[in-house]
Amino acid sequence: MKKTTFLAVLFFNGITLFAQTTEEQTIKAIYKSSLTNSKCYSWLDYLSNKVGARLSGSANAEKAVLYTKAQLETLGLDSVYLQEVMVPKWVRGEKETAYILYNKTKINVPVCALGGSVATSKNGLTAEVIEVYSIKELEALGAKIKGKIVFFNRPMADEQIETFNAYSGCVDQRYAGAKEASKFGAVGTIVRSMNLRLDDFPHTGAQSYGDIPKSQYIPTAAISTNGAELLSKTLKSNPTLKFYLKMSCQQMDDALSYNVIGEIKGSERPENIMVVGGHLDSWDLADGSHDDGAGVVQSMEVVNIFKNLGYKPKNTIRVVLFMNEENGGKGGKKYEELSKKNKENHIFALESDSGGFSPRGFSFEADDANFNKIVSWKNLFEPYLIHSFVKGHSGSDIEPLTSKSIVKAGLKPDSQRYFDYHHALNDKFDAINKRELELGAATMASLMYLMDQNGIIE
Amino acid sequence: MKKTTFLAVLFFNGITLFAQTTEEQTIKAIYKSSLTNSKCYSWLDYLSNKVGARLSGSANAEKAVLYTKAQLETLGLDSVYLQEVMVPKWVRGEKETAYILYNKTKINVPVCALGGSVATSKNGLTAEVIEVYSIKELEALGAKIKGKIVFFNRPMADEQIETFNAYSGCVDQRYAGAKEASKFGAVGTIVRSMNLRLDDFPHTGAQSYGDIPKSQYIPTAAISTNGAELLSKTLKSNPTLKFYLKMSCQQMDDALSYNVIGEIKGSERPENIMVVGGHLDSWDLADGSHDDGAGVVQSMEVVNIFKNLGYKPKNTIRVVLFMNEENGGKGGKKYEELSKKNKENHIFALESDSGGFSPRGFSFEADDANFNKIVSWKNLFEPYLIHSFVKGHSGSDIEPLTSKSIVKAGLKPDSQRYFDYHHALNDKFDAINKRELELGAATMASLMYLMDQNGIIE
Repeated sequence: MKKTTFLAVLFFNGITLFAQTTEEQTIKAIYKSSLTNSKCYSWLDYLSNKVGARLSGSANAEKAVLYTKAQLETLGLDSVYLQEVMVPKWVRGEKETAYILYNKTKINVPVCALGGSVATSKNGLTAEVIEVYSIKELEALGAKIKGKIVFFNRPMADEQIETFNAYSGCVDQRYAGAKEASKFGAVGTIVRSMNLRLDDFPHTGAQSYGDIPKSQYIPTAAISTNGAELLSKTLKSNPTLKFYLKMSCQQMDDALSYNVIGEIKGSERPENIMVVGGHLDSWDLADGSHDDGAGVVQSMEVVNIFKNLGYKPKNTIRVVLFMNEENGGKGGKKYEELSKKNKENHIFALESDSGGFSPRGFSFEADDANFNKIVSWKNLFEPYLIHSFVKGHSGSDIEPLTSKSIVKAGLKPDSQRYFDYHHALNDKFDAINKRELELGAATMASLMYLMDQNGIIE
Repeated sequence: MKKTTFLAVLFFNGITLFAQTTEEQTIKAIYKSSLTNSKCYSWLDYLSNKVGARLSGSANAEKAVLYTKAQLETLGLDSVYLQEVMVPKWVRGEKETAYILYNKTKINVPVCALGGSVATSKNGLTAEVIEVYSIKELEALGAKIKGKIVFFNRPMADEQIETFNAYSGCVDQRYAGAKEASKFGAVGTIVRSMNLRLDDFPHTGAQSYGDIPKSQYIPTAAISTNGAELLSKTLKSNPTLKFYLKMSCQQMDDALSYNVIGEIKGSERPENIMVVGGHLDSWDLADGSHDDGAGVVQSMEVVNIFKNLGYKPKNTIRVVLFMNEENGGKGGKKYEELSKKNKENHIFALESDSGGFSPRGFSFEADDANFNKIVSWKNLFEPYLIHSFVKGHSGSDIEPLTSKSIVKAGLKPDSQRYFDYHHALNDKFDAINKRELELGAATMASLMYLMDQNGIIE
């Protein structure tokens, strides 16, 4: 090796080493701040226990808007503001009733209306049941479906390691089951809850009638996994049993609501925007502590950490608490619409919407050059047990966002317990572990910091 | 590149690729078997809900021995047997009482005797309290301690990422606090529970009077973290407050108990033994589902998986369910004593005793050559989100085990929630997630399989 080359290498390594050391130290300070001096857990306590369930268009959703805006205002950001957005408003009405009827036996089963479903008649709906494992089966059954309730009972696949893959493999039954069954003359549908456990909680979630005429909308409900097992078993010995379902849910007029935004102006490139966010709305059955109270308070904690450490970002950092992820995604779409209108340049967006469990990594929507650059930071995350950097879906709320060049990421927490709670009445504050929540916030803040320092390859 | 070299490389890569593919496929089958066809969760249900708490020497501990032996006997192993071991027997007696007394105020606080503690007198103990943060402080306080209760209140450090490190940094107060305080004339000690959360559960655990004379043994109890905060705060305004403590615990004569062992004879090198185990005893306050029911049923599941897949190990595989890890470690010592007597050759030992949470990796006691060899298998584990291969402590029960050459490992699950439950009355079956337990068992079985296939470097 020639001497000049040697010196150049030494010099270059010196610079790299210096940068790496500073980054190491800052990330250490970020985790320490989050684990010893954070507000996210008490914010979530309030959001879950004082505000509670906050479906779009509800009074609680508005309370959540006001609360998070007020809290962001205490953090000394450069600006905090609301962004108007019209959202769908659906109400569940009275608690649903359902039972299995055969011979002289009547067995109650736990159900809940799926979001967007129409009601049954006031006296409820009674019909025979036809069990299927997929939408595809409907075609073969054809005329046999007419006048019946279709029961979609394909379970989430236990052998999947990532539970979100098991969810993707099943959720078509919930989202499109009613629309498809209606085409064959079904009078209603019941869907096995998207849950890997056997328990008594029905799990709600969005469904869509798509473009079928309103006159063909049929009531659709989720049944608990234990209920689904029981119904399936009972059908085997009593194929002509009847199922009774009563629901009084209703689609109302769209309502005015808001995205909540807090901003730290960039010190060097204020025109470059980096978003960190989660969604403020939840389903109506519980607090939504994991989905997505956790993501909301972790995103707020990211700027709280930066303020605590006196970190002045080069780019503009924007916390965005999106409204209406669960049943319309209107907040994400409105944010993108206004961003385009205002000719904003987003370079990065990070969403947390996979629960408040122990963070394991991120999934990225990025080209190879940016992805490889980010992967080169992995060693900085390993002391914090963050190992998983993969390409994949980032987040529903940031999905509409486009810019000249933009990298998107989603926090990936441990997913094993997520569907035990997802959209069900046990998604409550006591299912959250304070340290896991704080580690997630620190992991997000560390990535935001590295992206801010190193920029993206445009 | 010369042609011969090229062919050699191709051939070599071909072999490697073939081996890697077989290993990939086997590991895939192991995870599938565990997630879809395992018995560990229902075994744990029985152990936790039908047997319950099983402190060494108790009737429940004997029930656990018989139950796990009977279950191992259903798996078609080559032999299942018990290994006699004498264990200490300590009983808690009546539920403890404690309160803070000042002016005319009396505030009850949750406490529990530490394992091995002596009782107070029948009427209880009342004394002033002196708060310290470390054993080291005792020396400086000297004569001020005489006649008082020493209150050890150093909390677990929130900023630690691995909670076991926070535990190591505190547990001397519990283990040796009474012994050391007694030397300065203290009449009792109270120790802040080893728990990162603020809650109302006192956490028990082993303590030792070491070699001080029996006449100097003083009662020692754990206080819940909320209780510790309250006591500390109250002491600031009322330094002469009194603390009342009543406990009736008792050390009995040693009792006969057993390690439970199940074995698959090796098909190629039966003289080489590979152990997989956990400990059968638990503390007396709860089921001990995480500590260490989880490790017991996961170890049993390892051989169940091998049987399900028809896998015939080259080396002898031994499931060992150790007795008395919590307050004496007699089972592990007895196992080693008999192994040495029988001139057995152990090549590998794996313990699961860090809870039934999502597995993250292993810590190894191995020389560099073996460690590097194992690390080269990391890519086989990554699809299952297992990333952390580090050097470190393996497990208490396999610690005494020696052999000519031996590699030891401990399963490392996610540790964030572990000390929420550790040694407290909430360490129950409902704190276990089925999939997390099964993923742990599969991770253990995969490592056992790779060690069996590839052996160790002696």
